[in-house]
Amino acid sequence: MMRVEQRLERLGIVLPEPVKLPPGVEVTFAWVRVFADRAYVSGHGPLDSDGAPAGPFGRVGAEVSAEQGYVAARLATLSMLSSLKRSLGDLDRITAWLSVAGMVNVAPGFAATTNVINGCSDLLLQVFGAEVGAHARTAIGAAELPLRLPVILSAEVAVTP
Amino acid sequence: MMRVEQRLERLGIVLPEPVKLPPGVEVTFAWVRVFADRAYVSGHGPLDSDGAPAGPFGRVGAEVSAEQGYVAARLATLSMLSSLKRSLGDLDRITAWLSVAGMVNVAPGFAATTNVINGCSDLLLQVFGAEVGAHARTAIGAAELPLRLPVILSAEVAVTP
Amino acid sequence: MMRVEQRLERLGIVLPEPVKLPPGVEVTFAWVRVFADRAYVSGHGPLDSDGAPAGPFGRVGAEVSAEQGYVAARLATLSMLSSLKRSLGDLDRITAWLSVAGMVNVAPGFAATTNVINGCSDLLLQVFGAEVGAHARTAIGAAELPLRLPVILSAEVAVTP
Repeated sequence: MMRVEQRLERLGIVLPEPVKLPPGVEVTFAWVRVFADRAYVSGHGPLDSDGAPAGPFGRVGAEVSAEQGYVAARLATLSMLSSLKRSLGDLDRITAWLSVAGMVNVAPGFAATTNVINGCSDLLLQVFGAEVGAHARTAIGAAELPLRLPVILSAEVAVTP
Repeated sequence: MMRVEQRLERLGIVLPEPVKLPPGVEVTFAWVRVFADRAYVSGHGPLDSDGAPAGPFGRVGAEVSAEQGYVAARLATLSMLSSLKRSLGDLDRITAWLSVAGMVNVAPGFAATTNVINGCSDLLLQVFGAEVGAHARTAIGAAELPLRLPVILSAEVAVTP
Repeated sequence: MMRVEQRLERLGIVLPEPVKLPPGVEVTFAWVRVFADRAYVSGHGPLDSDGAPAGPFGRVGAEVSAEQGYVAARLATLSMLSSLKRSLGDLDRITAWLSVAGMVNVAPGFAATTNVINGCSDLLLQVFGAEVGAHARTAIGAAELPLRLPVILSAEVAVTP
């Protein structure tokens, strides 16, 4: 029985549907690139359960609060898990989270990007545990993000080939 | 016979000369770091055929249009290929594009970074095909980029050792 | 006898204490994630010798000069080395620097991020030599960085398992 899926279920977490992009935005890259014992995860933003980009949109520190930014980072993590599940078939194939890059769409002067991206790190540790879920991380303030999303996350994970 | 080079020739594409930096800018890193079965590609911008940074310069959404940004992403991809060819000897040593990070120098409010960096993804798929060319990707808006370039790309690729 | 430590000593360099974050900033990620033959290094800023974030704080090109930015990049490199030493036990386990991402907190119009991040590259080459210290690199301008630090560095290095 799949351990990660069980833990998600126990936490009451349902992964969102595949990303549904608005008209005029085309994606020619892979949401997840699996190669040998690695999976490279493209930039993912927060999604509603149906796969549509989830608001609030805009800059953290202006249109979006720090708390909403934390939630957006949590939702963006679920988007990554949804794409990983589709690519790997089984989230238990993930043997280690290696690195996560967190980009926060910031209003001038908003420097608390660390706490915003904790919305990702906290969830990874909760779902994958301290050993598999441990990861290096960077959290920076971006000048703009695709679709005016408040947070984008990308990652590299180790997987069983 | 080299397949990737043939495809470039058939597309009428000539790779630019090695990067020629303006006076006062020194580079102490490697344009490509090859190690075992990986090549790590430093941030590359668009170049003219002689290796000089190619204009237009400035922010996409202000001095540079979205269409010019797309072309800049395509040219920056050719800069990466030029550096990879010099480091690897043969572009057919590339067995998989793994991840690409696209940074767009944005004017406030310009959020269409996805379409700009498609200038890279579209070319990679055209030249390397769907299997080798597939890649994870992130496209973010940067506050500034070296030399006021509109686009910078970095990448990680798998290579035959 | 440890070669890298010897070279640091000969250069009069003392690594800072572990990062001491200000109240209200919590870190749930790993400063270094070691997995098999790789170490992934989280975003590190400049530290004082006691591990407290080192000033000057703010944007390069405004509150912080380009020269101070170069020094900040050098100090942030020492922070990475301090974390790596704690995680690996011995810095000689590093067999190759692979890639470094440099993020500069920039004032509008400050595009000389390359020269700022040379503060990292110059030190890596000095301490690890041309073969182990060679690395791919990206230097971009961020809109904001955690704690209003002027520079943040992250990296991937190859290590003996």
